[in-house]
Amino acid sequence: MATELTPQERDAALARLPGWTFHQQENSLQRAFEFADFSEAFGVMTRIAIEAEKLGHHPEWRNVYNLLQIRLTTHDAGNAVTALDVALAERIGSFV
Amino acid sequence: MATELTPQERDAALARLPGWTFHQQENSLQRAFEFADFSEAFGVMTRIAIEAEKLGHHPEWRNVYNLLQIRLTTHDAGNAVTALDVALAERIGSFV
Repeated sequence: MATELTPQERDAALARLPGWTFHQQENSLQRAFEFADFSEAFGVMTRIAIEAEKLGHHPEWRNVYNLLQIRLTTHDAGNAVTALDVALAERIGSFV
Repeated sequence: MATELTPQERDAALARLPGWTFHQQENSLQRAFEFADFSEAFGVMTRIAIEAEKLGHHPEWRNVYNLLQIRLTTHDAGNAVTALDVALAERIGSFV
């Protein structure tokens, strides 16, 4: 089972994840995206959905038209940031 | 352009939209869904996305694994409930 990253591990991961920030209060990695329109936003969401299923780890996300907000945390680890969140953020970063 | 429904029009529409409620404070139609898993949730989101594009009217929505929360309001009408929101809710209801 994934365990919470230490602050050092988390900071090292964030240094490799441009655009992502750690939100202390919500204990999660977060990133907001703005696309050209809904079609582009949902296209990216579909790619993320496929990666999430492959990883067995899913985002919390909110979409309004061309805007997408993603929050990554691991519920099984007591809502903490784990290597699974970093892995999903890396995959998202590879195509957005 | 879509204009805000009167309370009478809105109530008549809601009577034909099981599961949907009108949230006064947020001036929107809202509904929450619980699916078997992420794959089923995202499958339904994909169908909704296609309908939304066809209508030219899009949901505000939030997904976490098998849960989906949808909020419908019309930004162009000053964040009010219009016939467009009712139309999208009807299409969603036709396959969920």
